Amino acid sequence: MAKRHRHLQRRPKSTNALNKAPGTVAYVGRKESAEIKVEVIDYNKVNYERFIFDNVEATFKFENEEKITWINVDGLSNTAEIEKLGKYYKLHPLIIEDIVNTNQRPKIDEYQDYLFIVAKMLYHKENGILEHEHISIVIGKDHVLTFQEADGDVFNAVRERLTNSKGRLRNSGPDYLVFALLDAIIDNYFVVIEEISDKIETLEEQLFTAQPNDDITFEIQELKRTVLRIRRAVFPLREVISRLEKIDSTLIQEKTLNYIRDLYDHIIQVSENIEIYREMTWGLMDMYMTTISNKMNEVMKVLTIMASIFIPLTFMAGIYGMNFEYMPELQWKYSYYVLWGFMILVFIGMILYFKRKKWL
Amino acid sequence: MAKRHRHLQRRPKSTNALNKAPGTVAYVGRKESAEIKVEVIDYNKVNYERFIFDNVEATFKFENEEKITWINVDGLSNTAEIEKLGKYYKLHPLIIEDIVNTNQRPKIDEYQDYLFIVAKMLYHKENGILEHEHISIVIGKDHVLTFQEADGDVFNAVRERLTNSKGRLRNSGPDYLVFALLDAIIDNYFVVIEEISDKIETLEEQLFTAQPNDDITFEIQELKRTVLRIRRAVFPLREVISRLEKIDSTLIQEKTLNYIRDLYDHIIQVSENIEIYREMTWGLMDMYMTTISNKMNEVMKVLTIMASIFIPLTFMAGIYGMNFEYMPELQWKYSYYVLWGFMILVFIGMILYFKRKKWL
Amino acid sequence: MAKRHRHLQRRPKSTNALNKAPGTVAYVGRKESAEIKVEVIDYNKVNYERFIFDNVEATFKFENEEKITWINVDGLSNTAEIEKLGKYYKLHPLIIEDIVNTNQRPKIDEYQDYLFIVAKMLYHKENGILEHEHISIVIGKDHVLTFQEADGDVFNAVRERLTNSKGRLRNSGPDYLVFALLDAIIDNYFVVIEEISDKIETLEEQLFTAQPNDDITFEIQELKRTVLRIRRAVFPLREVISRLEKIDSTLIQEKTLNYIRDLYDHIIQVSENIEIYREMTWGLMDMYMTTISNKMNEVMKVLTIMASIFIPLTFMAGIYGMNFEYMPELQWKYSYYVLWGFMILVFIGMILYFKRKKWL
Amino acid sequence: MAKRHRHLQRRPKSTNALNKAPGTVAYVGRKESAEIKVEVIDYNKVNYERFIFDNVEATFKFENEEKITWINVDGLSNTAEIEKLGKYYKLHPLIIEDIVNTNQRPKIDEYQDYLFIVAKMLYHKENGILEHEHISIVIGKDHVLTFQEADGDVFNAVRERLTNSKGRLRNSGPDYLVFALLDAIIDNYFVVIEEISDKIETLEEQLFTAQPNDDITFEIQELKRTVLRIRRAVFPLREVISRLEKIDSTLIQEKTLNYIRDLYDHIIQVSENIEIYREMTWGLMDMYMTTISNKMNEVMKVLTIMASIFIPLTFMAGIYGMNFEYMPELQWKYSYYVLWGFMILVFIGMILYFKRKKWL
Amino acid sequence: MAKRHRHLQRRPKSTNALNKAPGTVAYVGRKESAEIKVEVIDYNKVNYERFIFDNVEATFKFENEEKITWINVDGLSNTAEIEKLGKYYKLHPLIIEDIVNTNQRPKIDEYQDYLFIVAKMLYHKENGILEHEHISIVIGKDHVLTFQEADGDVFNAVRERLTNSKGRLRNSGPDYLVFALLDAIIDNYFVVIEEISDKIETLEEQLFTAQPNDDITFEIQELKRTVLRIRRAVFPLREVISRLEKIDSTLIQEKTLNYIRDLYDHIIQVSENIEIYREMTWGLMDMYMTTISNKMNEVMKVLTIMASIFIPLTFMAGIYGMNFEYMPELQWKYSYYVLWGFMILVFIGMILYFKRKKWL
Repeated sequence: MAKRHRHLQRRPKSTNALNKAPGTVAYVGRKESAEIKVEVIDYNKVNYERFIFDNVEATFKFENEEKITWINVDGLSNTAEIEKLGKYYKLHPLIIEDIVNTNQRPKIDEYQDYLFIVAKMLYHKENGILEHEHISIVIGKDHVLTFQEADGDVFNAVRERLTNSKGRLRNSGPDYLVFALLDAIIDNYFVVIEEISDKIETLEEQLFTAQPNDDITFEIQELKRTVLRIRRAVFPLREVISRLEKIDSTLIQEKTLNYIRDLYDHIIQVSENIEIYREMTWGLMDMYMTTISNKMNEVMKVLTIMASIFIPLTFMAGIYGMNFEYMPELQWKYSYYVLWGFMILVFIGMILYFKRKKWL
Repeated sequence: MAKRHRHLQRRPKSTNALNKAPGTVAYVGRKESAEIKVEVIDYNKVNYERFIFDNVEATFKFENEEKITWINVDGLSNTAEIEKLGKYYKLHPLIIEDIVNTNQRPKIDEYQDYLFIVAKMLYHKENGILEHEHISIVIGKDHVLTFQEADGDVFNAVRERLTNSKGRLRNSGPDYLVFALLDAIIDNYFVVIEEISDKIETLEEQLFTAQPNDDITFEIQELKRTVLRIRRAVFPLREVISRLEKIDSTLIQEKTLNYIRDLYDHIIQVSENIEIYREMTWGLMDMYMTTISNKMNEVMKVLTIMASIFIPLTFMAGIYGMNFEYMPELQWKYSYYVLWGFMILVFIGMILYFKRKKWL
Repeated sequence: MAKRHRHLQRRPKSTNALNKAPGTVAYVGRKESAEIKVEVIDYNKVNYERFIFDNVEATFKFENEEKITWINVDGLSNTAEIEKLGKYYKLHPLIIEDIVNTNQRPKIDEYQDYLFIVAKMLYHKENGILEHEHISIVIGKDHVLTFQEADGDVFNAVRERLTNSKGRLRNSGPDYLVFALLDAIIDNYFVVIEEISDKIETLEEQLFTAQPNDDITFEIQELKRTVLRIRRAVFPLREVISRLEKIDSTLIQEKTLNYIRDLYDHIIQVSENIEIYREMTWGLMDMYMTTISNKMNEVMKVLTIMASIFIPLTFMAGIYGMNFEYMPELQWKYSYYVLWGFMILVFIGMILYFKRKKWL
Repeated sequence: MAKRHRHLQRRPKSTNALNKAPGTVAYVGRKESAEIKVEVIDYNKVNYERFIFDNVEATFKFENEEKITWINVDGLSNTAEIEKLGKYYKLHPLIIEDIVNTNQRPKIDEYQDYLFIVAKMLYHKENGILEHEHISIVIGKDHVLTFQEADGDVFNAVRERLTNSKGRLRNSGPDYLVFALLDAIIDNYFVVIEEISDKIETLEEQLFTAQPNDDITFEIQELKRTVLRIRRAVFPLREVISRLEKIDSTLIQEKTLNYIRDLYDHIIQVSENIEIYREMTWGLMDMYMTTISNKMNEVMKVLTIMASIFIPLTFMAGIYGMNFEYMPELQWKYSYYVLWGFMILVFIGMILYFKRKKWL
Repeated sequence: MAKRHRHLQRRPKSTNALNKAPGTVAYVGRKESAEIKVEVIDYNKVNYERFIFDNVEATFKFENEEKITWINVDGLSNTAEIEKLGKYYKLHPLIIEDIVNTNQRPKIDEYQDYLFIVAKMLYHKENGILEHEHISIVIGKDHVLTFQEADGDVFNAVRERLTNSKGRLRNSGPDYLVFALLDAIIDNYFVVIEEISDKIETLEEQLFTAQPNDDITFEIQELKRTVLRIRRAVFPLREVISRLEKIDSTLIQEKTLNYIRDLYDHIIQVSENIEIYREMTWGLMDMYMTTISNKMNEVMKVLTIMASIFIPLTFMAGIYGMNFEYMPELQWKYSYYVLWGFMILVFIGMILYFKRKKWL
């Protein structure tokens, strides 16, 4: 039990962070590392280049109108570098704050020259742990900036498709790239909620097979917590995509709208599934109560049957264990056998009684 | 328990499917078969013809303005053929994706020249299993395309009415045909939720007659899952039909609107019934808890009565089984009879006590 | 248990009915009878006449502009007659379908020349059974058509007031007559939900007085079902009346609007009461669980007290029933009395202990 | 239990009342009394007069434009008098009906020359019983009519402030008087829900201290009922005041609007508190279940400890109570003492076992 | 239990307070103190001054257009002083009433020359008690008035930043100061709900480790109450900030809007967390029920095993304790050893039986 860790989204307790002025750029996540990894993918219909840098200045030269530049920053704890990048791309201070504030809920903000989207990436790391990662996306005229907490994400498929010159991705604008990224994020939600479904099934089976024990209670409670956390990551994104569809911005081309509508369909589907798993998870505790009660019922039946059969028989034996001088039965030759006969009759009677009650 | 299968709508886990580009046509259902069956019904007020083909090219010759062509495709795993048909009819790539993506939730999309509707067909196969089938409908100017996963559907009544030249169906446009198809789908929902009602009644009776056992708990949980799945198939269709009623499209004639409103009434009615069955199903677990508790109460009463009666009597017998040398009662001639008398009094007293408490 | 009958609103299972074309007139209720009873009340400020016919043709002569004609049809299974009447009054085929489809939920439809209202009449028949009857109302320029499943309704008070020339009813138009009919229907809802209230009180008392048994569980579940059914009959009517108030139709005179608003007040009041009874009914199962647990607690206490007192005493008696040759106490003259004394002390001690624990 | 009385708002069962024509004036409350008490307070900035009459005609002379006349009628069963007053002030017949129909839910109706408000007065009578009283308010150009069921209300503070010439009340119009009356009603809601809070606390304490018994279950259910009743009295008033704020009527002066907004704040606050008490009350049943289970657990522990200790010991004693001729232990001199030693060991072992399990 | 204190927001019971005229300034909180502490911070880009006074008159001289004046009043019971201040700043009487009415829920009111905001400050005092403090904010053209119940607040960080001439705070208007104050209040909500999260974890652990006892039940109920109270303080503030964002007032500069939007994000986040903690808290009672049941199950198993093993053995011993003259086994030399063998077999059999049932 000591290894349980559950951290709901929290802003830090330290006086320091709480007293900071709004717009102050302070990383609040748990993935501290001074290192920053900047990946730049610069592409258009005909060209494709990919670079990895360890500082943001290197990315400044990629600004050109003929190519789309996707700058992906891994590592948010080196806030100085992120501020530098932000300044170069003229991002509002509050955006910089939101990029590093890993507690920021999914949202979309419109600014003059760019759109700003916050989402949560959910995926299983190799060790099976559910990763809950903060991701920010800035869509500009000819560039897309993405910021993540750590190395490792769900975008490999997008990167692969970018290397392939024939796909729709290479022929479209930054809006389509953002669509592809969001699509990758949402596709992974399906995998994650699948795990929830598996966990529910496993628990259901445990309820029936395992002896009642508090670990199951605790696992159900943990599962509730996980479902609620996933829900909080997913539900606000629904509104984000809904607004993205209706946004009146030159950054989103009309032909991309169909794809965003498709995205909206998917996120709704994820939400519906989450709600179903939520209902199922909440039902588990009730199921558990009935299985415990059933098991207790069985225990009580064994006790009742044993006691009901042998207590009267013991009483009979007790009667003839008495030491009264005048007990006529004691002298009679067949008493012992008659008593045995009677006891067997009582025994059979009880067995039949319990059989009729269907307790046996 | 090994035979339990419950699959909530899921997108496939394979990296392959998840990494696919949006608009990629990939069948994700469980009804794999390379075969495709194409049924064409070409009709107008005076003519009626029906053909079965095993490829989509054969259907291309049916385009003519005087007749309404209903092309029904069975089998979605041969995506190449479906793409061919889609190209011929100029369907948007996302529509082709949705046709074969059996996880797509019910929806309606408006395009320039056609309307696209996704719905879920629920029906019981001959072996009694609930079939949950993905169906897509494309309404064009003089044709209706329908796509299903497998052979076997709920449209036989519609086919029959089409052979009959006098019905409203033959005298109306493709919009009325679509209405008839949706009506057939929704009519089957009534049959399906009827089964739920029967299942609830069966479970209720089992609760009272069967000994407490975990199978009932599990069946209740299964029923919850089924109700939630049906709900997910039905509820989005409500919005689809609501939007169909309000749509401003030349494809829907005004005289058909009254029928669509009627359809809306029916789907609302299905939804209301599902909600009622949902409440009843959720109530089953509580009912079960009370019946288990009642049964345990009964078990406890038997134990308590047996023990309360015989434990004091056994004690009395024990007293006179003691071997003290000086126990005056042992020598008295009538002790044994007096003790029996006293024991019978105690016995009767206990019986009366339990009778007064209404435990007997 | 064999006599339980609960039928939620269902469309028939027969292939026949399901495969019917929309707009097909098929009676789906359970009150089959070839007979039809047509009641005509023809009135204006000065005249009043009432006739009973057994066919609809007889009613056709009543069309005149000076008088208001109320045609009330009892019996929906003779659909041919109803279609005849529908044709004469130019009713849309879907309306005819809804008139005989007893599963149609309450609704209001506006047509060129008439308004069409569907409602559910709830009332207790003489044998105490709750009648759930389908009623359709057509409001024309100078006539009102009402269709019911069976003889016997809640309109007698309206009929009586019509015979009385001084009332507002005789001086107003068909809209006021319809208001009076709806008012009669809603007034009966109050009576019906009153019964629910009584039933809840009866069950509450049973919970406390009766021994735990599954019949109560079942009755609570039945009551839930009844409340849900009444709710489904009443709630849609709320929307009907709300729309009736806002409708822009020459058929509803402005001075009647105040009365419809009043009607709306009443139906809201019914709905509020239903919601309260719903909460109370849902609470009954929890109440039942606590009373069962209380009763089990009492049973357990009796067992525990009896066993805790006599098991140690029996042990003591057992000790001195042993046959060891060297047991000094056995020979001592006062052993027996001392032991009795000790046993009585133990007995009193236990009693005091249980008294202090408040179990006695 | 025989004295329980809970009456949800009901319209009377008598055929008479149900069959009455709409607009018929019939008192349906439970406070029958032929007497009527009419209180008139006639005031303006400089003058103040107060009269008590026993008929309504006496009030007719007070109509004048310079003074505001507040006519407060106590007693609704003398409907003739109320109709007389209604006719004099040209009230719509439906208003008269609502004034005496104590089941009418809170509402506001706008008429040409006056506003009509229905509310529920909740207050504790001297004997501690919660009074649930119907009150109707008519706001005219220079008069306010209020109708109550019985003598005794929450308006004494308003009356007192009216006698004081300096207050805002004397310097404002009838709208401000109505505001003051509603404010007095709502202020009393705070007192009433306070009682609910106290009752919840009392019940919580009882749960822990009292032995499980069904009275607590019943009291919790009663409390639920009370909360639901209060809720029904309060919630519709929220809408009433919200509409009063937005109403476009010359009867409400603009400077009064700030006060009405304040009133709205208060009623929202009452509603929020009711919802909190509702949650707490609903939680009581669950609390009770856990306390019962805890108590049963304790009972079971005592039984288990007593039985587990003494049953094996009794068995041992039983062994040496056997009468076999060849039992070597019986002859051995120290058998008895050794057995005692062994028994004491077993006893101590059991005690330690239960201590380790923390059952002791 | 005697020290439990839980006070839901209440208006006072005293007749006095209830009968007061609206707009009457009466302090209703629990922090009585005649003292008033007035803190004035007068600043602009270049200057910064801070004063502490014990009366409000001293603040009147600070009115000047070049500097922003923040007047913070600690102590609301000296209503005379507050009225004086209110009069000087021309505040509406209802505002003065709301400033001292600590039960007023969070709200925003727009007036001609100022905005009025009510919020609730939640913070932990040094002794660990959750402080629930009423705070009112008035935003004027060049001044901000804040009113609190007691000394000690969450604004120290704001004060600190004000002393620092470089921050955004010194360069912005009163609207930005108000934003900073609200931000400080909301930041503290995060700390407070963190405590709730910790409390939930503590309780969960207690559920598993502690013996069942009613204190846990009570603590869960207390936690529910706390969550509901926090919810009531936080949720209305959401609407306040939402309206603040949309307000059309010259008092709020456009560049501040981005910050207010950020604030809105934070309050939404707090609300979401509260809802999650609410779900978790409500789930605790169910968890507790299952852990109690599990514990009872264990108790029952011990009893059943002990009784099932020893009761039959005792019966056997009882048989051979009987004193019949003709019991052949008694004389047989090996009877005693055979019986022991049989008893050991029965014992082992029972143990195996319980092992197979997994009760051991």
